[in-house]
This record gives sequence, structure tokens and C-alpha cells, in this order.
Amino acid sequence: MLKDFEMKKREDKETLSAETKDLRAVLLGQQQLLIEAKLPVLVLIEGWAAAGKGSLIKELISEIDPRFYKVVSPVIIPESDERYPFLYQYASAIPVNGKITFMDSGWMESAVRKFMRHEITKDEYRRRIRQVNEFERQLRDSGYLILKIFLHIEKDEQFQRLRTLSEAPETEWRVTNEDLWQHKEYKRFLSAYDEFMEKTSDTVSWNILDGSRRKSAVHDAMKLLTEKIDKGLKDGKYVGEPFDEKFPLNKMPDLADVDLSPSIDEEKYKKELKKLQTRLSELHNIIYRKKIPVILCYEGWDAAGKGGNIRRIAYPLDPRGFDVHPIASPLPHELNRQFLWRFWTRLPKTGHICIFDRTWYGRVMVERLEGFCSEKDWKRAYNEINEFERMLTDWGAVVIKFWIHIDSDTQLARFTERQNTPEKQWKITDEDWRNREKWDDYEVAVDEMLQKTSTKYAPWYIIESNDKKYARIKTLKIIVKALEKACEEHFEHIID
Amino acid sequence: MLKDFEMKKREDKETLSAETKDLRAVLLGQQQLLIEAKLPVLVLIEGWAAAGKGSLIKELISEIDPRFYKVVSPVIIPESDERYPFLYQYASAIPVNGKITFMDSGWMESAVRKFMRHEITKDEYRRRIRQVNEFERQLRDSGYLILKIFLHIEKDEQFQRLRTLSEAPETEWRVTNEDLWQHKEYKRFLSAYDEFMEKTSDTVSWNILDGSRRKSAVHDAMKLLTEKIDKGLKDGKYVGEPFDEKFPLNKMPDLADVDLSPSIDEEKYKKELKKLQTRLSELHNIIYRKKIPVILCYEGWDAAGKGGNIRRIAYPLDPRGFDVHPIASPLPHELNRQFLWRFWTRLPKTGHICIFDRTWYGRVMVERLEGFCSEKDWKRAYNEINEFERMLTDWGAVVIKFWIHIDSDTQLARFTERQNTPEKQWKITDEDWRNREKWDDYEVAVDEMLQKTSTKYAPWYIIESNDKKYARIKTLKIIVKALEKACEEHFEHIID
Repeated sequence: MLKDFEMKKREDKETLSAETKDLRAVLLGQQQLLIEAKLPVLVLIEGWAAAGKGSLIKELISEIDPRFYKVVSPVIIPESDERYPFLYQYASAIPVNGKITFMDSGWMESAVRKFMRHEITKDEYRRRIRQVNEFERQLRDSGYLILKIFLHIEKDEQFQRLRTLSEAPETEWRVTNEDLWQHKEYKRFLSAYDEFMEKTSDTVSWNILDGSRRKSAVHDAMKLLTEKIDKGLKDGKYVGEPFDEKFPLNKMPDLADVDLSPSIDEEKYKKELKKLQTRLSELHNIIYRKKIPVILCYEGWDAAGKGGNIRRIAYPLDPRGFDVHPIASPLPHELNRQFLWRFWTRLPKTGHICIFDRTWYGRVMVERLEGFCSEKDWKRAYNEINEFERMLTDWGAVVIKFWIHIDSDTQLARFTERQNTPEKQWKITDEDWRNREKWDDYEVAVDEMLQKTSTKYAPWYIIESNDKKYARIKTLKIIVKALEKACEEHFEHIID
Repeated sequence: MLKDFEMKKREDKETLSAETKDLRAVLLGQQQLLIEAKLPVLVLIEGWAAAGKGSLIKELISEIDPRFYKVVSPVIIPESDERYPFLYQYASAIPVNGKITFMDSGWMESAVRKFMRHEITKDEYRRRIRQVNEFERQLRDSGYLILKIFLHIEKDEQFQRLRTLSEAPETEWRVTNEDLWQHKEYKRFLSAYDEFMEKTSDTVSWNILDGSRRKSAVHDAMKLLTEKIDKGLKDGKYVGEPFDEKFPLNKMPDLADVDLSPSIDEEKYKKELKKLQTRLSELHNIIYRKKIPVILCYEGWDAAGKGGNIRRIAYPLDPRGFDVHPIASPLPHELNRQFLWRFWTRLPKTGHICIFDRTWYGRVMVERLEGFCSEKDWKRAYNEINEFERMLTDWGAVVIKFWIHIDSDTQLARFTERQNTPEKQWKITDEDWRNREKWDDYEVAVDEMLQKTSTKYAPWYIIESNDKKYARIKTLKIIVKALEKACEEHFEHIID
């Protein structure tokens, strides 16, 4: 791509400024239409050091009302200090509906640079490229307009610019050792950029602009942006089609076939609980030192005993190293972003455990059944979720998902007890009763969810919870076993 | 305090466990009442290294539903790497109404440790103590229940514990050099902790617990917490009284006396605009390198020209180093916290410029006039805001506030033009017309605000904006002058 790119050396004609001015007016007019159409726009500007990415963004935003855009400048954290997954910074910064995010370098620069620095292996680099493709597709499928620009300058031009910057005392600090290193390795970077762009054009194609002609670059970028928005406005918000990707799946029984009779006697419960909690506490220490992130997901029927179960897990953990995220209906700013955004932003740091009390699976349960998203949306979500979780486990996370299961009679008994016990009445709402009426619909949805998303890397476990104590012990055992396995496998790369 | 504290060496009696169990049940019952009463609770656990803060918190939370609390463990960042004000981490972590935040060390440990390490001067230490008192009072006055516990152990006990931890391979990593240093300097730390506690008991008193008797400490902490909550529930949500603190104020004219005739001709405007924007761009570079944070606040009449003014400021700035925060009505999770929280969490890093398009002054304008807060709340807010801004300028920030001013006729003309111009119609809403009817009430509120909050350190500037171009030039001049002054005064302590 870059190798064949012909620098047009186009002169910055006078007429260009006038055209750019017109485009600015168009963009200004599009602002309000974007809000009305609820279309989010993500503009990624990549390119060589000193190619003028910052100035280009400055020109692009100059006429837009500051309420309608954000500029983000992600930082490339050395891999050894990295506490979050590769795409975390970028996924956290996606715009809300109707607004524009300009990204001053992003996932391309980070992936390429870490690979060039030998901070990540070839395999890891390939995985990141796959993750980028998945990420871009998921955003596109949720209606995001994505524009990707690479600002290109030739080696000589870069040399001139870096020299000019270095020579003036007020700009000298802008030239980093990284920049000089890139310049020295220009040829290798050229190949690497080329390869990256070739491999990340699945959903959104790249636009290479000639950074050596500043005015043309601004004009062309403005043209690409306004055209992209114009097309988006005409076509209306895109809703991606469901698709079938093969994931390595565990076979799951239908809920109807689950035997809910298992129970445990009080004596044994107390003994096992203590033993397992002590072990979990020890494991938390090791997990912390080995910097393994752990994500525990809880779903289940109302009154199945999720809360009490979670408390028994949380009790032995060091409160400094874990978080519980209760997931309720999304807030407006969450609802106006891709549905996984509110989970991306709640991911644990490496070495931390986080428990999701209800999860992203709301998409294929309540959102599906209540019509909070379109049919295409929830049908597509199985794959999106499997990709999301693969990304988490590729990062090194332990991901375990529990379906806390009871039968309908047990739920009724517990609801009734709550209703009749003053200090428990707050636990039961009209909504719980309404949901209960839809038990059969939920069962269909849950069965489908378990079939389609119990991957080898992020398995579901059905926890029989008619006897809550049995359920707690079973959950603890599964967690302890998974953490023991992770600790054995995980190369102890850092000890504080 | 600590010096006179008598370690009771109370035996951990059998009966204690039973009492603690009862208290746990009480706490469990209080959970729902807290939600209903919308009372937020902040529990600060400070104390010696190895005193058992983590275990204490673990015991306190063991019965609470994870949806009702958060545990935060603020990190002490070395002063030279610190990019936010001293209280930023703690202010960002305050709970929402109805929930509990447990803080595992907080502002006390940070202030004392940095002072002991000589990372901050005696003067700065004193300022931080004042800030802590202001912070605690402001939270208390907004209805927060605050419990402060210091977990005390004697030097010998600390020695034993650190040794035990060091000797076991699985806990050895928990003993840091900082801990060993604290142990060595036990006596000096004792005095420092003592002094800090004495000086921060203005609003919320300290509770010293004997950490050497674990069960007693848990019991006592649980008792303090349940009693605090119980009292809070009985008394109802506290609303602080307004009070008068003297701040160094600039004399401000009444809006009615402002001459709105100043204007500028097109030629001169273009020339000045270019010159000032170039200068602002240069200054942004210096600001960035000197790590000076800059906070620009915009308030003004609807249609006064805030948006266009802000764009002229933003244009020359490097988009990587500034942010615009448009402030709309608070979201539910913002509304359910102290009113400054949503501004705390939007503060710029050192070296960055941030522009608030509407600000915390909403409290004494729209919230006052629409009854969104109580009379005591907005009357108290003048002081709270002056304290907040003093904290910002003490941190080193440049804080400038603009009232973009027009007269009523000009507003009417601009509203009418917006109404009649299709591409501007989105800018005018029914609410704008409704607000316009309240012009006189707003004028009273704005006059009072300008009188009471134009401090020497964070002054208000009234910007005559009947001629928008004149307004832009005036704003730019004020900013340029303030930044030049800041750059001269500021010791250039870091150059990348």
C-alpha cells in the first residue's frame, strides 16, 4: 500500500483553500444531522512521526462545536507496564451516538510499535490484528461510522521535519528518541505499516494521504470525512447482519434436563466452605503477584441466590484486589454506545479479580425479550460476545460464567417468603413478578445462550441452587480449580 | 491522641464474637434503609503498616450485599509524578447516595507520608490539612456520613507482624521498603499521625482502635459504623448551614452597569485574532512543558456567543493537550453525589488546558432558580466553590472565569434570527424562551454570584459580547496575559 503509494506532489493551489472552506461549512451543517440520526463517528489518524497528525486534527475540528467532538491521544504504555487489554484505551474512548471522536494515533501505532520493539511476539501481533478487525467490525455493525487515515511522508521529508523541530528551542522537546529511532528504521517501519494496513482492511479500508502537502491533506481528509458522514446519513444507521463463526464450544444440557436435587448437609457445608475460602484467599495472593486478571460472571433466575453466592466468594478476597460490578439497566451515556462499552470500561486490572453481578449476556436475555435491541442485534451478539471473551482470555484472563439455576416452584416459594418477611420486602419488586411470568421465554433464551457461548476458553457452569449451600460450594470449587490451573500455567513473569 | 491512647489489651472474649454477629445483622438491615434515605457513607480506615486495615475492611463488608458498597485502595503516587490535585483520588471515589465506600488508607496516609518523605513542604502540608477539613465539611454538609478510624499498633507489635509476614514466602512480598522505613521511623510517624489527627477533627472526629486485638477492633469498628448509620437515619439527611468565610474578593460591577457598546472593526479583529491565537499556541507549548494546569470557565446568557468564543480559543491549541467539557444537566449518578463531584472527575492533568462550557456555577444560577437544590445548599455553595477554586489554584492551576454578557434586546434579536434560519433552529429550544422570561431573576443571581466568587486567585471577567468579535478578542487577551504571568512565575521544574 505505502510502497506503491504515489506522492502526487500536488501543489497547494489557491482554489484548494476555498474548497476546504466549503467542506468546513458542510461539516458544520452535518453536526446537527449526526445528533438527530444518532450516528457516532470515529476518526482514526495514524501516520509517521512528524507527519502532521496533530495539525490535521486541529484543522478538522476547527469549525465544529466543541460539544460535538472529543480528541483523544492514547498513550503507548510499555508492554511490561500494561495493566489492561490491548484495545482497552481505544474501546473506552469510542464516541456516544451523534458525536465524533478523533484519535491521534491508536491501535495501529500501538500494535506496530510494540511488535517492532519486540515487546510482543509474532503470534501476539497476529492476535492483535485479528482483534482490531473484530473491534472495527463490531463498531461498524452497531452503526459506527469509522474513517481511517494514514498520513504518509517520505524518509527525506521526515528528516527535514525532525531537524526543523529539533533546531528550534520551543519545539525541540517534541522530537523523542522514539521518533529518531523510527526515522533510522524507516524502511522496516514502512513494511510493517504496509502489512498492518493490508491485514486490517476487512471492514474499514485505509486512506493514505500525502502529509508533505499540508493543505491538500486537510482538504482530502475533510472531503473523506464529509463524504463518509453524508453516506451514513443517507443510508441511515447500519445494523450489522448476524453471522456464524465457529468457536470451540462445550456441549451444554438444556435447563429442563438439569437435575436440581443435589444438596449438602450443614456440617459438611461449613467444613468445605472454610477450606475452599482459605484456599481461594491463598490463590488470590498468587494471582495478584502473577498479574493474572480474573473475571467471574454471574447470571441466573431472580431469587436464585446470586447475591449470597457472590458474598461467599468475595469474603476471603483481599478487598484491595477485587471489585464487584452490579449491572443494572444501562444509563443514557451507556445506552448510547456499543453495548459492550460499559463492560470494557469495567474490566479489572491484571492481578485483580472482578465479579460481574449480571453481565453482557443481558443482550441475549432481557434485551432480546423486551425488545430493547433489534433481532439482528441480539442474534449478532453471540459472536460478538465470543470474540470479546476470546480477547479477554488471549490477554491472559481467567473467565468463568455461572448460571445460577433454580426451578420455577423454588422461585415462587422464595418470592413469597420475601413478600411476607418485612426486612426482605425490598428484595422483591413488581418487575420480578412480571419477569416470572415470562419464565418460559427466558428459558428458551437461556438455553440458546448456553449452547452458543459456552466456549472452551470461557465456559458456562450451571449451578444447581435449589440448595443455596450446595450452589456456593460448587461455585467455589470451580473457581479454585480454575485459578489453580491458571497459576500453574502462567509464567511467573513479574514478582514485586 | 495516639500518644495518650491506652491500649486496653482487652482479651478477645468469647462473647465478643456473638456481639459482632449481632452487629453484622444490624448492618445488613441498615443497607436498605440507607438506600431509602439516600444517605451516602464514607468509611476511612487509616493506620500503621501491618495494623490489619485490609482484614478489618474484609470483616466489615462480609455481610453486606456487594451492590451496596465499594472498597477503594488509593495509591500514593510520588509527588513528582502526580498529575492531579492532592484530593483528586479521594474526591473521585466518594459514594453515591445510599451506598458505602470503604477507603483503605486515604488522604491522611498520603499527606503524612509525603510530608515525612520531604516531597512536600511544611506550607504545602498545612494547605493539605486545610483542604482535608474543607473536603470533609463539604461532604458532611451534603449529607454524607463519614466515619474515620485509625488502627493503632505499638512498635513491638508492628515488628512482630512485619517479621511474620516477611518470613512466610507467600506473604513476604507484602512487606515493602516503605513499611520497613515506617517501622524504623516509628516515633516520628507517631508524632506526625498525632498532629494530623488533631488538626483534622474540625468536622469529623477520629476513632482510634487497638489493632493488636483483632476481634475487638472488628467489633468496635462495626459498632461505630452501625451507630453512625443509625444516627444518620434518625436525624435524616443533613443539610449544612451557609456560613461566611472571608475570601480575597475583587469588586465587581452590577450587570446593569456594564457598558455593552464596545466593538471592534473587521480589519482590526482579523489582525488581533491571528496575533493572539499565535501567541496562545506558543504559550500552550510552555504550559505543557511546565506542567501548569489551566481551567477556563464559561458562563453567560443563552445566545451570548459562548460556543463561538470557545472555538476561537480552542483553534490554536494542540488538541492533544486540551479538552472541552460541555456541562448539561447532571446524569443520575452525578446528581446522587456531592455537586462538585462531576467537576472533580473532569479536572485536567497538569500541563493540560480544559474549558468548561458552563460550570459548577449552575448551583447558584439554574439550580437556585429552578429549586433543584435547597436554599441552604445554594447559599452554602459560594463558600464551597471559593474553597474548591482555592484548592485548584493552590495546586498550581490557572483558573479564569468568563461571564459572556449581552443585553436582553440582543438576546431577543439572536433568538429570533435562530428561529428564522433553518440551519440554526436546532440552537433554539422552548427552554431558551422559558429561561428568557426569567431574565430578571437570573440577573439577580448572576450579580450575587459575581460579587461573592470573584476571588483574587480565580477572578471573574465580564465579557461584553453584543459584538461577538470584540468579546473574542477580549477573552483571548485575558487568557494570554494570565498564561504569560503563570509561565513567568512558575518554576520550570520539569522539562521532558
